[in-house]
Amino acid sequence: MRVLGIDTGSTHLAWAVVAPAEGPTPAVLLAHGAVEGKPHTPLAYRLWAAGQELGQVARAHQVSHVGYELVFQHARRGGGAMDAALFTGAVLAALALYEPEGYTPNQVKAVAVGHGGADKKQVAAHVRELVGVPAGLRLSAHVTDAIGVALCRLAQERPLDLLPLVAAARTR
Amino acid sequence: MRVLGIDTGSTHLAWAVVAPAEGPTPAVLLAHGAVEGKPHTPLAYRLWAAGQELGQVARAHQVSHVGYELVFQHARRGGGAMDAALFTGAVLAALALYEPEGYTPNQVKAVAVGHGGADKKQVAAHVRELVGVPAGLRLSAHVTDAIGVALCRLAQERPLDLLPLVAAARTR
Repeated sequence: MRVLGIDTGSTHLAWAVVAPAEGPTPAVLLAHGAVEGKPHTPLAYRLWAAGQELGQVARAHQVSHVGYELVFQHARRGGGAMDAALFTGAVLAALALYEPEGYTPNQVKAVAVGHGGADKKQVAAHVRELVGVPAGLRLSAHVTDAIGVALCRLAQERPLDLLPLVAAARTR
Repeated sequence: MRVLGIDTGSTHLAWAVVAPAEGPTPAVLLAHGAVEGKPHTPLAYRLWAAGQELGQVARAHQVSHVGYELVFQHARRGGGAMDAALFTGAVLAALALYEPEGYTPNQVKAVAVGHGGADKKQVAAHVRELVGVPAGLRLSAHVTDAIGVALCRLAQERPLDLLPLVAAARTR
């Protein structure tokens, strides 16, 4: 099982590939990256290219499951919400065979920290811990969000694997 | 020149194929339809299928240009705006080779009636007239909107063709 997590915003498209592990952490981060939109390129082409690129990522890393962040939440922020939704639509269509599942930011928080009330920093720290990212490795907040939705997708298939470490993290 | 116009809402996806004409009207309606989403089908599959279906429409009717309604305007209505944007993103990616151009409802009004202040009924009546739709033929409001964006795309390539009839319609 290899899970591709996708975080789509109005100006970014970050991804991460996560697999379950038997080691000290319940999962490991195998790869991560961002789709770089070429400026001055027509919107429709950028949408197509984003789908193609994530399709290549999914094949290259032999992904079996896909999770993405539900953009509904962005709606209230206005402005870029439409762009985020356009890219999400294009990417979901390109990855339809993987039957992508969407997760809200609160679901990501719940998987990472055990409840939906944690702040962004706490969530990011726990997400890193769950996939064994060493403290020195810098990851963008968008990549951390992508790992978070990948963990949601993973937890949906293997709920018990994540729980012991989540519990350990909370008591630390 | 054959133009595919697309109107994407949260619960519908209507299309129309329009071509310029030398007859009594500046353009003619060649075909129209709606993409019927299958209920109880996963969202990502419906997004993929919508792109595929409109790609087939474009090829079947030898379309050369594509216009679509900008969904940004829907944003303030909340609710379905995100769905409309997801489908627009999937469709634009699928039709990227046609370099789709987006138009606001006000641009559709301006092409159909000559100014942006007309009400929806007036716009629909003028849109029908511009492509020679007989009075007895019923078309959904969504198909009329799709014809409207197709006319915007047409007018962008051949501005002068539309103007005489628009002027005639206004003085009638």
